[in-house]
Amino acid sequence: MASLRRIAVIGAGICESSIYEMARQVGYLLAEKGAIVYCGGLGGVMEAAAQGAKEAGGLTVGILPGNKASEANPYIDVPVVTAMSHARNAILVRSVEAVVAVSGGYGTLSEIALALKMWRPVIGLNTWPGIEGVHYVASPQEAIERVFAIIGEGC
Amino acid sequence: MASLRRIAVIGAGICESSIYEMARQVGYLLAEKGAIVYCGGLGGVMEAAAQGAKEAGGLTVGILPGNKASEANPYIDVPVVTAMSHARNAILVRSVEAVVAVSGGYGTLSEIALALKMWRPVIGLNTWPGIEGVHYVASPQEAIERVFAIIGEGC
Amino acid sequence: MASLRRIAVIGAGICESSIYEMARQVGYLLAEKGAIVYCGGLGGVMEAAAQGAKEAGGLTVGILPGNKASEANPYIDVPVVTAMSHARNAILVRSVEAVVAVSGGYGTLSEIALALKMWRPVIGLNTWPGIEGVHYVASPQEAIERVFAIIGEGC
Amino acid sequence: MASLRRIAVIGAGICESSIYEMARQVGYLLAEKGAIVYCGGLGGVMEAAAQGAKEAGGLTVGILPGNKASEANPYIDVPVVTAMSHARNAILVRSVEAVVAVSGGYGTLSEIALALKMWRPVIGLNTWPGIEGVHYVASPQEAIERVFAIIGEGC
Repeated sequence: MASLRRIAVIGAGICESSIYEMARQVGYLLAEKGAIVYCGGLGGVMEAAAQGAKEAGGLTVGILPGNKASEANPYIDVPVVTAMSHARNAILVRSVEAVVAVSGGYGTLSEIALALKMWRPVIGLNTWPGIEGVHYVASPQEAIERVFAIIGEGC
Repeated sequence: MASLRRIAVIGAGICESSIYEMARQVGYLLAEKGAIVYCGGLGGVMEAAAQGAKEAGGLTVGILPGNKASEANPYIDVPVVTAMSHARNAILVRSVEAVVAVSGGYGTLSEIALALKMWRPVIGLNTWPGIEGVHYVASPQEAIERVFAIIGEGC
Repeated sequence: MASLRRIAVIGAGICESSIYEMARQVGYLLAEKGAIVYCGGLGGVMEAAAQGAKEAGGLTVGILPGNKASEANPYIDVPVVTAMSHARNAILVRSVEAVVAVSGGYGTLSEIALALKMWRPVIGLNTWPGIEGVHYVASPQEAIERVFAIIGEGC
Repeated sequence: MASLRRIAVIGAGICESSIYEMARQVGYLLAEKGAIVYCGGLGGVMEAAAQGAKEAGGLTVGILPGNKASEANPYIDVPVVTAMSHARNAILVRSVEAVVAVSGGYGTLSEIALALKMWRPVIGLNTWPGIEGVHYVASPQEAIERVFAIIGEGC
C-alpha cells in the first residue's frame, strides 16, 4: 500500500449540511481515486471527508489536536494523537501532497497559509477568497480533477 | 519582572528597508511601554522588531523554527529552540497577549489566523488585507496605541 | 477498520541483524493479531517492525521526525511528517495503546519514559534495564502475549 | 544581554522540601554565574529553580506544557506557552547549553534522554541513576562547578 497518494481535506469542525455534503463528496472521490484521506480527525468537514472516504472503501488518517484517540470521528482508521492543539495543523498539511479546503474558519485559514508556505498545492472550495496561490474551484468533482492534474495520477 | 506585557511582532524573514524601519519602530515603542517583545527570532521583520526593542532597553524572545540557538538574530536575549519548523508559529502567538503583524507572506498569514483562532488580538500594519477580526492601522504609533487600548496598560 | 488495536514498536534507527530480526518478528506478530503497527518511520528497528507487519498483511504508520515523506522506510503505509525532530517521540507513544521497546539508545529511552508518563504500558525486549514500570520480556512471542494480556484482545 | 549562558533545571512538578531547597540553590548559583535559567515553568523543582534564580537577580524562562501563561509559577519572567504537553520537553532541553536534573520522575527521565540524544551535557543530582553519559554530582555547588567546567564560563 506504500506510496498511495496522500491528500488532506481541511475545514471547520462544525458546518452546515450543505458543506458537510460537499466535503463528503470530496472524501469519496479522493478515496475512489486511490488516495489516503488525511484530515484533522474531528467533526464537521473533517468527519464528512472521512465518512466519504470510508464509503468509497478508502483509508483515513486523523491528525488530532487533543490527547485522546477517542476524540476521533468514527470514520478515522488511523488516529494520530498529537496533543499539540492547533500546532497539529502544520503536521497535517506537511504530511500530504495536496490540500483541499472546504469552507472553514481561522483554523482552516492557518492551514491554507501553512500549506502554501510548504509548497503544497491548495484547492479551495467555498473557502477564504482571494488568497494568491489557491486554486479555486466550484465543485467536489472539479476539486478532485484539479488535485490530480497537479500532482499526477500515478505514483 | 514577572507579568510584563508580552507582545509578538510577526512578519517575513526578508523585507524591504521601509518595512524593516516600520518593524523596528514597533519593537522600540513596545519595549518603551514595558512589553517583552516576542518574535520568530530570525531576520527581516523579526530582527527589526528585536533591534528596536533592544534600542529601547527592552527584553526580546525569539521562538526559533530551527535547531540551533545560533540562528537567532543578534538582538534576541532569550532564544527558544523549537526545531519544529513552521509549527513554532502556534507557540509564538499563543505565548503573547497580542500580535502586531507587519507586512508578511504565507507564514505571517498562518500566524494571523492562528492568533485569531486563539482569541489573541491582531493589529495589522501593511499586511494581508480584508481579514475579519484584524485591527488594521496605518503606523507603528497607531499599532502600539491600539494594542494597549485593547489589552490595557497595567498588569 | 476503525478501532483496530494500535501498538508502537520503538528502537534505534541503526541496529544489528539479531535485533532487526527480533523487531521484525514483533511487527509480524502484532499485525497477525490485527494491530496497526506504529513506529518512528525510519530505519533499524523501525523498519524491521514495519517490514514484519507488512509480511503479515498489516497496516503500518510512520511518525517521521524530518520534513519529507520520502524519508520513510519502504514498509510504511501511512507517513506522518512532523518536521519536529525528537519531539515527535511524544506523538508516537501517545497515539498508541501500548509500546514495545526493542533494544535502543537515548531516543528509545525518551520514548519509554514518555510512554510511562502517559500511562501507556511498555514492554521491554533487550532494552534499557531496571526502569520501574517496564514489563521486561525475553522474546517477541512473550512481548506480544504481554501486550494483549494488558490491553485485551478485542476492541 | 544576548549570549548569556542558558541552563535548564529539570525535575518533578511536586517534590519534598529537601529537593525543593536543592533545586532553589541550583537556580540561585546558576543565576549568580550569569546564566539564564530555563525550566518547565510549573511547580516543584521548576518553581524552586526559578525562585532561586530570581533571588540571585537572574532571568527565568518557563517552557510551559499547557495553554495558559497563567499556569507559570510566580518566578517566571518569560513564559513560553507551547500547548504541546510533554512534547515541550524536547524544546526545553534543546534551547539550552546544559541541563541539571534534580530528582524527578518519568518526565525528567524523558528530558535526560532527550538532552543526551541532542548532545547536551546532563548533570545529575539525586536523580535517575546509572544512565551512561550523565555527570552525577552530590551537591548544588558541585553541579554548578561541573556545568561551567563543561561549557566554559565566558561566551
